[in-house]
Amino acid sequence: MSEDKKKSIMDYDTVALDEENHALVIIDQTKLPYNTEILSLTKQEDIWSAIYLLQVRGAPAIGVAAAIGIYLAAREIEASDFEEFYQKFRKAKDYLDSARPTAVNLSWALKRMEGIVLDNKDKPVAEIVEELHKEAVKIREEDIWVCKTIGEYGLTLVNPGDGLLTHCNAGQLATVKYGTATAPMYLGQERGYHFRIFSDETRPLLQGARLTSFELKESGLDVTVICDNMSASVMRKGWVNAVFVGCDRVAANGDTANKIGTSMVALAAKRYGVPMYICAPTSTIDLNTPTGKEIHIEERPASEVVEMWYEKPMAPEGVKVFNPAFDVTDHDLIAGIVTEYGIAREPYSESLKEIFRRKQEALKDE
Amino acid sequence: MSEDKKKSIMDYDTVALDEENHALVIIDQTKLPYNTEILSLTKQEDIWSAIYLLQVRGAPAIGVAAAIGIYLAAREIEASDFEEFYQKFRKAKDYLDSARPTAVNLSWALKRMEGIVLDNKDKPVAEIVEELHKEAVKIREEDIWVCKTIGEYGLTLVNPGDGLLTHCNAGQLATVKYGTATAPMYLGQERGYHFRIFSDETRPLLQGARLTSFELKESGLDVTVICDNMSASVMRKGWVNAVFVGCDRVAANGDTANKIGTSMVALAAKRYGVPMYICAPTSTIDLNTPTGKEIHIEERPASEVVEMWYEKPMAPEGVKVFNPAFDVTDHDLIAGIVTEYGIAREPYSESLKEIFRRKQEALKDE
Repeated sequence: MSEDKKKSIMDYDTVALDEENHALVIIDQTKLPYNTEILSLTKQEDIWSAIYLLQVRGAPAIGVAAAIGIYLAAREIEASDFEEFYQKFRKAKDYLDSARPTAVNLSWALKRMEGIVLDNKDKPVAEIVEELHKEAVKIREEDIWVCKTIGEYGLTLVNPGDGLLTHCNAGQLATVKYGTATAPMYLGQERGYHFRIFSDETRPLLQGARLTSFELKESGLDVTVICDNMSASVMRKGWVNAVFVGCDRVAANGDTANKIGTSMVALAAKRYGVPMYICAPTSTIDLNTPTGKEIHIEERPASEVVEMWYEKPMAPEGVKVFNPAFDVTDHDLIAGIVTEYGIAREPYSESLKEIFRRKQEALKDE
Repeated sequence: MSEDKKKSIMDYDTVALDEENHALVIIDQTKLPYNTEILSLTKQEDIWSAIYLLQVRGAPAIGVAAAIGIYLAAREIEASDFEEFYQKFRKAKDYLDSARPTAVNLSWALKRMEGIVLDNKDKPVAEIVEELHKEAVKIREEDIWVCKTIGEYGLTLVNPGDGLLTHCNAGQLATVKYGTATAPMYLGQERGYHFRIFSDETRPLLQGARLTSFELKESGLDVTVICDNMSASVMRKGWVNAVFVGCDRVAANGDTANKIGTSMVALAAKRYGVPMYICAPTSTIDLNTPTGKEIHIEERPASEVVEMWYEKPMAPEGVKVFNPAFDVTDHDLIAGIVTEYGIAREPYSESLKEIFRRKQEALKDE
């Protein structure tokens, strides 16, 4: 980056380790898009709060923050032997893990870090801490690699000047860098692709309007916000060449659970001949879930729909509300599932298995 | 209604003439759903303001309010001969007409009232005023008849206990009584049908959350608000047996322009085998518009999407916004067009003509 370019909040990674000051550095997402603030956190209480208060959010970003957080905790542990160290480590781990009890990536990252401790139990404590340091950096770099690789594969599916549409925020702000659905957009921008991006606002919590349009705009991309019910209109106008969205879970047959409204984008895309791609790190693909029918859909409080941010409620008091957080997009509406090990196509029951074979090969070679 | 039932705002017609006090009586829609207020307007300035400020809204309701308004103006005119009366009438008419220059029903109703004046020019002024009185009452009763008849036809398409979904507000609050899309719901309720209604909130202006769910709830119907991006989810669950929506314009081939998002409801309905019906007074069917392609779609300001009612903007400052007010639902997604002269079905290019033949027959018999 040239020095005369004004530094934007998006020039920072969403989650980073400040090696010099031994701090977890994050973008405070609770302030976006009004205030842009970088937090440098060293105390465990502050790291716990950052996860609890959604100052850092998005499954991958939470996992990386937890890995860095537990490494920083381990650094501070004073212990005369492994047993004492491990006990104190476990206490710190349980504490961080309690910040968001249902966040899979939080537990996953902390367990992986605990594995490092146990694998190195015969080494001196200082060396164990150094192994934890390496692993936290590795988890962070893996996240960047996964997103960037998804971006590279995604970029093969589009052309310079294309119109792209996305829903919710599967962006850089949910990962360390690049995001998943946004990775092809950022990589394309680096290569002068000049995409025109449409960002669904994504009711009820408006992640598209608040976060996706913010990060793309800050990064200099051409982004237009639309209401969720307008995506068919922009496709009908021929303004959209491809849809990229993230996912919460992909079933073995390709059925995909993602933020509520995704399946309606998919129906419009099908109608207007626009290919819809799911950007899915293999960590979100669950071959043990046969189809979308087996995916449980979380229902959330009415207040999100009728009260959020408004000075006065936007519906009559006490009216019934149905507020599912996700929906399932059937595999026949999906043109491809873009992973860090390639692009799966119909029939997904075969191609997703092939993706995992490639992953196993790659991990074997490592 | 039994006397012990608490009187609800929806026990009032949206627009009425108070014969005793010579007043236009309306429900103030700018206060809904927070405050329920009945306005009794006698001054021309107040009637003009009520239309201008959207205290009365919805094409049919505006037309009726204008007819009553110009009759009340005519009552006050002091004139020694027809010429003087007509000049003063014209002045009053132009004044009311200026309240919403693009509202078709406003001009239509005022022109029809002017026709009454001209048709009766040889009568004494007092008699002309009485003819205007009759015509205003007739316009109002016609609106009720159109809505009620659409409701009767609509009711033949559903069964007791059905789940029904609607989008935006084509409800009683947009007409004198019954509404169009809501007419089958109200008539069904009178007959113990116990529908379960889903009301799309309808971004950006939230007419569904603010108005439709309000009027249905006030009238004792079972209504659930959902975000627009959730309609596919409730259909996928099998909770919806039919969709009823209003329309802004129907083309000769059945393509229908209605509030933005309607076409996405239609795509979901098609996917899940739910019939979607357009409730269309014949006044909204335009056989001179061949297809939906010829319907101009109004674009509205970005502020509606990113600012409305929020204490702080809900998207980054200056972000681009695309905000079309309507979309077109292709005729192949429509199971039927319900008019006051029967239900049109595919091929609409034939069946809509038949609807107009029936209308001409009926008007001839009158």
